[in-house]
Amino acid sequence: MTDREDAERQAVTAANAEFYRAFGAGDMEAMDALWADRGEVTCIHPGWPPVRGRADVMASWRGILAAPPRPAVQPVEEQVTLMGDAALVVCFEAIGEIFLAATNLFLRQGGSWRLVHHHAGVTEHRPKTARPKPSATLH
Amino acid sequence: MTDREDAERQAVTAANAEFYRAFGAGDMEAMDALWADRGEVTCIHPGWPPVRGRADVMASWRGILAAPPRPAVQPVEEQVTLMGDAALVVCFEAIGEIFLAATNLFLRQGGSWRLVHHHAGVTEHRPKTARPKPSATLH
Repeated sequence: MTDREDAERQAVTAANAEFYRAFGAGDMEAMDALWADRGEVTCIHPGWPPVRGRADVMASWRGILAAPPRPAVQPVEEQVTLMGDAALVVCFEAIGEIFLAATNLFLRQGGSWRLVHHHAGVTEHRPKTARPKPSATLH
Repeated sequence: MTDREDAERQAVTAANAEFYRAFGAGDMEAMDALWADRGEVTCIHPGWPPVRGRADVMASWRGILAAPPRPAVQPVEEQVTLMGDAALVVCFEAIGEIFLAATNLFLRQGGSWRLVHHHAGVTEHRPKTARPKPSATLH
């Protein structure tokens, strides 16, 4: 991996972390700034149909971030794939003891990495790095 | 939209359609050819954890395509987002009367569009263009 690639992966990972910080903190201003400044963005929340277009995607986030209580959301085992001006992050989302599997797609825009697509859904699996379930029987 | 953009969207849509044809037909050779020729590919099947790396992603498809009976899978309401050498397709997957929401990410490689990531998950919603549920009461 070149130094430049390494720096790009770090920048994408940081943008992904900022997304989850804004999510957990209910920071709608930061969430809005994180999404690409183009109409053509999409989002698939768990169990939802695809939400299409910046106005509807932001409306969906306003609803989600306004609903108390907001849980902390942590990205776990993030994998970054660079594709020129696009970058993919595949990760788990840890919400307490619940884990979701997530796809986050970023576009390089104005010197920063901004979201063009988010897709999260249920998974019965857990990251390898997760602590064992509190209910697990230890032999 | 320029003619070139239009042609690119059509090519991406065709690659997406070919993915679902190979899926429904259990055509593992076509499925293998559809995925990018790089180790760094990922896949999130419904309810699964992220599968990482070409060998493991292909092994997951071999298992899925080998399991009879294979249902027909149709993409519905595909939306294509072009990002230079990457292209995103967000769509519903119609499997009989069941619908999933899906993310497919393609990379331009050797003159064709090849998959680098697939993510599908359950949704209780249906595309606007879907026929009403057979069980629906009509008033």
